[in-house]
Amino acid sequence: MNEQGSHQDNRPLSGLKVIETARVITGPMVGLLLAEMGADVIKVEQPPRGDAFRNWHGDGAGPVSANFVAMNRGKRSVDLDTKTEEGRKLYRSLVRSADVVIENYRPGVMDKAGIGWEQLKEFNSSLIYCHITGMGTSGPRAGLPTYDAVAQALSGLWSQLTDCSRPEPVGPPFADQLTALYATVAILAALQARTSTGKGAKVEVDMLSSCLAFQTLAVTSCLIDGTVFDHRTRGRASLSFGFVDSVGRPFAIHLSSPQKPWEALCRALNLPDLIGDPRFRTKADRSTHYDELHDVLQAVFAAQNRDEWMALLAAAEVPSAPILSVGEALVDPQVIALDIIGDDGPRSPVVINGHRCMTVRTAPEFGEHTEEVLDSLKKLASDDALPD
Amino acid sequence: MNEQGSHQDNRPLSGLKVIETARVITGPMVGLLLAEMGADVIKVEQPPRGDAFRNWHGDGAGPVSANFVAMNRGKRSVDLDTKTEEGRKLYRSLVRSADVVIENYRPGVMDKAGIGWEQLKEFNSSLIYCHITGMGTSGPRAGLPTYDAVAQALSGLWSQLTDCSRPEPVGPPFADQLTALYATVAILAALQARTSTGKGAKVEVDMLSSCLAFQTLAVTSCLIDGTVFDHRTRGRASLSFGFVDSVGRPFAIHLSSPQKPWEALCRALNLPDLIGDPRFRTKADRSTHYDELHDVLQAVFAAQNRDEWMALLAAAEVPSAPILSVGEALVDPQVIALDIIGDDGPRSPVVINGHRCMTVRTAPEFGEHTEEVLDSLKKLASDDALPD
Repeated sequence: MNEQGSHQDNRPLSGLKVIETARVITGPMVGLLLAEMGADVIKVEQPPRGDAFRNWHGDGAGPVSANFVAMNRGKRSVDLDTKTEEGRKLYRSLVRSADVVIENYRPGVMDKAGIGWEQLKEFNSSLIYCHITGMGTSGPRAGLPTYDAVAQALSGLWSQLTDCSRPEPVGPPFADQLTALYATVAILAALQARTSTGKGAKVEVDMLSSCLAFQTLAVTSCLIDGTVFDHRTRGRASLSFGFVDSVGRPFAIHLSSPQKPWEALCRALNLPDLIGDPRFRTKADRSTHYDELHDVLQAVFAAQNRDEWMALLAAAEVPSAPILSVGEALVDPQVIALDIIGDDGPRSPVVINGHRCMTVRTAPEFGEHTEEVLDSLKKLASDDALPD
Repeated sequence: MNEQGSHQDNRPLSGLKVIETARVITGPMVGLLLAEMGADVIKVEQPPRGDAFRNWHGDGAGPVSANFVAMNRGKRSVDLDTKTEEGRKLYRSLVRSADVVIENYRPGVMDKAGIGWEQLKEFNSSLIYCHITGMGTSGPRAGLPTYDAVAQALSGLWSQLTDCSRPEPVGPPFADQLTALYATVAILAALQARTSTGKGAKVEVDMLSSCLAFQTLAVTSCLIDGTVFDHRTRGRASLSFGFVDSVGRPFAIHLSSPQKPWEALCRALNLPDLIGDPRFRTKADRSTHYDELHDVLQAVFAAQNRDEWMALLAAAEVPSAPILSVGEALVDPQVIALDIIGDDGPRSPVVINGHRCMTVRTAPEFGEHTEEVLDSLKKLASDDALPD
């Protein structure tokens, strides 16, 4: 435990015990979120190499990848082969004293191994069991492998991100990671229900539903107005724009709906006539003539450098910011001021009573905590009480 | 209450009382998530027109927008002017019996109005008070208005989405909505802590931290390896691809790291020689020569239509899907099979003990529930117990 350990007592999930039997992103990111908030997350990994994400880019050898650190800091790792009877027995013992299990195997895999929800709840009636799937457990695609791009494509999310005449995969793995966020919400809601019922629950979250839920604006607009959002919708709906300066450095302006930032922008740029221009008079006009407005402004912005525009726009209270690379973002003065970047990743956005949640352990080596975890089990339970 | 009311008793947050004093997206989406899971969410709206999102695209008149429905179904609405002493008194009474308050005003606004955390906790010591901000409460940008595009730009998230030589705003409002998800996680974690402490808490979540936290892969890679992700990284890291068929219909293939789907793809396309091609032999090779691989495959895929490719790829177990528009997604057979689209929006991705969480009310008219909510307050409290 490092010096950040002083935060631990303040963290809201301190005392919560979580078993994560999950690989790659969807499940491990849930474990990460719970670990940041203070849960004791024990990552159960299968021999010989554990979570495939440890060495995603290589041949299975070599150092732990940044990908693995990104999703697994703050946890303990136990090397446990649940394909053996002894491993399953130990796994059940672990689960017996746990609050939460997270797994992202395909439907039926854990049940067949004898360590699914139906089996585990028999000796831990207050267990919250979270099963993350690609596309749920019914329907024509339930049995097929679902990777991030598949769920993004089928849910419509991809169509909101790139020009579909030349579709490109972009961004963080949205389908995987949104699913992790919804699954974390689901687990915590089930824990809340447990405070009144005393009972555990089986929680299921899938990637397709998560992508659709996140598209609530687009889905509801389609259902109610019949409009179909695509990658061009966001700018027009919100009047947000991307521009480049005289040397190609990008920046953003977000005018939103009110007249005030629009008029402030026109005055700041010394273009007061634009305010009354019939193409741009109302929010609806500016939305309809979005491309023209973009081009008019881009022509102006090409004349000077970004720092000068940022100062001018800030003074005029026009919502704006440089579009930073991830590297630049890490050293931005606001990011520094908030102290939100740790040694091995971003810190949690959750601040409780003035204390920012954060992990207090580095990402574990495979099986690093096998001995200490199994030793603590022995202390917890007498041998004859171990379930078979 | 409609026929979906039968689900209510199963929902995990049934019995939880939430006061939402929030506008537009970040705060209201938190209320939506809690309402879907069974919480009684009372949306406190200011006269004369309530949440600006009711009429975002117009002049303030006319019907409630799809945007508003997308973020506010499942709630009750109370018309309450907290700029008056009477309104503040009623607000405090509402909060006195609540579990959670959600607000997204700028730092200090609610405190100045006498209804901030410091004031409210005095008469509800178990209250969870969630304050959502753009950029936190310290640092050079803390006082500036932060809209979605501003947080996306400054956090680096935008740079992972589009080519920054011609930056475009795309997708759902990621900064707003990711913040809502993290804030929901924060609130539920604080509720979990309350079960042991009995105490409420102030929870703060900001848009900049949320965007950075969601970029854990990019941030950690930058910190550990010094690599800077951009909009081209995702395809290369995950070997996911977008293609178009003979008539321009888009589809996705996600090969990921293992050899198996890659070799299956080559055989399905009757291109077995590609497997041994030195440009594409290993995952790392295919990542390095991503553009070439894309072009080789695109030339093949241009010869035939998407339905035929989808059937062929499914038979070969190559993870793939059509890239659907949002409209097409709503009627996809898998989406229909999971029954995840309601009348007024997508349903919750959270399924607990086999029951999918969903809202049981339509989006409220402004002030629709003022009378019933205030009447229930009168029943709850005798007048002299009302705080001032």
